Amino acid sequence: MAFTTNGGNGEYSYSNNSSFQRGAADAAKELINEAIAEKLDIQNFSSSNTFRVTDLGCSVGPNTILAMQNIVDAVELKYQSQGHNTPEFQVFFNDIASNDFNTLFISLPPDRKYYAAAVPGSFYSRLFPNASLHVVFSSYALQCLSQVPKEVLDKSSPAWNKGRIHYSNASDKVVQSYAAQYAKDMECFLNARAQEVVYGGFIVIIIPGRPNGLPHSQAMVNMVGEILGSCLLDMAKKGIISEEKVDTFNLPTYFASPQEVEAIVERNGCFRLERIEILPQAIPSGNFSRGKVMSSQLRAGMEGMFKEHFGEEIIDELFDALHKKFDESSIFESGNGSTLFVLLNRIATV
Amino acid sequence: MAFTTNGGNGEYSYSNNSSFQRGAADAAKELINEAIAEKLDIQNFSSSNTFRVTDLGCSVGPNTILAMQNIVDAVELKYQSQGHNTPEFQVFFNDIASNDFNTLFISLPPDRKYYAAAVPGSFYSRLFPNASLHVVFSSYALQCLSQVPKEVLDKSSPAWNKGRIHYSNASDKVVQSYAAQYAKDMECFLNARAQEVVYGGFIVIIIPGRPNGLPHSQAMVNMVGEILGSCLLDMAKKGIISEEKVDTFNLPTYFASPQEVEAIVERNGCFRLERIEILPQAIPSGNFSRGKVMSSQLRAGMEGMFKEHFGEEIIDELFDALHKKFDESSIFESGNGSTLFVLLNRIATV
Repeated sequence: MAFTTNGGNGEYSYSNNSSFQRGAADAAKELINEAIAEKLDIQNFSSSNTFRVTDLGCSVGPNTILAMQNIVDAVELKYQSQGHNTPEFQVFFNDIASNDFNTLFISLPPDRKYYAAAVPGSFYSRLFPNASLHVVFSSYALQCLSQVPKEVLDKSSPAWNKGRIHYSNASDKVVQSYAAQYAKDMECFLNARAQEVVYGGFIVIIIPGRPNGLPHSQAMVNMVGEILGSCLLDMAKKGIISEEKVDTFNLPTYFASPQEVEAIVERNGCFRLERIEILPQAIPSGNFSRGKVMSSQLRAGMEGMFKEHFGEEIIDELFDALHKKFDESSIFESGNGSTLFVLLNRIATV
Repeated sequence: MAFTTNGGNGEYSYSNNSSFQRGAADAAKELINEAIAEKLDIQNFSSSNTFRVTDLGCSVGPNTILAMQNIVDAVELKYQSQGHNTPEFQVFFNDIASNDFNTLFISLPPDRKYYAAAVPGSFYSRLFPNASLHVVFSSYALQCLSQVPKEVLDKSSPAWNKGRIHYSNASDKVVQSYAAQYAKDMECFLNARAQEVVYGGFIVIIIPGRPNGLPHSQAMVNMVGEILGSCLLDMAKKGIISEEKVDTFNLPTYFASPQEVEAIVERNGCFRLERIEILPQAIPSGNFSRGKVMSSQLRAGMEGMFKEHFGEEIIDELFDALHKKFDESSIFESGNGSTLFVLLNRIATV
């Protein structure tokens, strides 16, 4: 099971349903510009005339195109302000092979200042040659695990997660399984990047997460999972899907705290944590159904996964039910919608 | 107007209709292996740990995947035979942005020995950073012009090509317009590559062409254009399409002789012509309709262009008529089906 966001430009496409993610990108933009202006040491890169940037888990745009443009602009400014010739830029858009790269390619701006390329594959493994990247960016992607932890789907395991589809309000064993899978995946991510990123290169990670100490169940992203689970259980009660189907389904996502990320980065040892911040909440407000917006955005991101497990015929009903439950819930008032901004610097190994 | 081969895996997909091209690739394989073994000077590349290869005009496979695998294997063997460490390989699959890269990505072999990337855009302009490529490969793509020469569609020009869709058996002015467009496009191609290919790097070009001195009208590829034109004129006579529509349509292809290619390479001055050969004919023989095979292959390559100009509704009838005319013709017996193999070496500029 892997996350493939919806392609194309239709009603439920990721292209038209990614404003939550864009909010975080806007808030992160200033931090990225600041990091590049103040902390990126371009002397490290003087042997290369090409500056290589990647967006890992780019989906189909427009967010990735804006983010890449911003990074290229900020790096160009840095070179100019230090009296260096501007390098040539090569931007690699990465996502898993089933991502809709065709739509992404067609929407690339013709007047872009970089050579564009796409790289298919999971960012939990190697994607690029050694020491070939200068800035790695990843937004709203690293909360997706490489897989659901096996134990939570295993009837004979103490971590079996019966009657739930996520770890919020689940047993400690379930939470631990998810946290361990996250740590393992992040370790794979950092090890792969440690080889691909040049010394002095940056990794910028934007992920939905939670403040230190906040119980999982109070993070908005976890509340979403609970409401989604309750919609599926309702459908099982009505006989639309089987209880078995619900029990064999868990969401492959984990939402970490700054402390957890810090510990993983420290244990890995290849990167210096330059900065970790909680970005201001970016929940759209206004005179419209936030439940509808949120359910459409989830649909754009996760429809494929639900189709694969439950079948296409339940999708409309599921997301309609979700929309209603969101509107009836207090999720937008009481949920904590924290987004983490993480800046890592590839340091020389001893 | 641009060539986009048919995506997907259906009856008329390029994936399932590219055996003519594969025949040439097989014949070229030996020449490529020989060139890499004997003429590629890897000492030139010692500063880079990454060996970068591209297929310009790759379409959707499987030919591109086989060709790239072959080049990577041959280069790996060369490094090993000279006692060097094997470099990491990065392979860039290039075609115009409307190519079906999604299908290509899904069909990449999981056990490939290279990092894969796709690059969208026309190979008549820059696609890669300076001095970043070691081997450039292009098969059955550089016969496609960047555009139909303007004059042949211009009623007021002496090169107006009324009643024909190609230059075979047309007036000298028409032939000259096509040849000039080809020379101009090749010049753009070589200038872009001169910047992208490292010193000592190779360009391998495989194109349908004609032997020196052979009249255009006797080249099989030009006979195909004539038969295609006669099918369209038949449809115009029957009132299925307008004569005007046929007059405003010309094929954007040119089939060069070795002498023409030599002259263009020499004038450009950035590459040494290491080798130019005419490959043995690779026309499938056997107990089946070669007309059907040929019309299906043309459909896979050119359907999009005909749809755009004439409308989708005529496509089945056009290619059915083409199949019949091929079978009735002597094209497989009398046409010259030459494929050119060109090997260029990026030389240092003085």
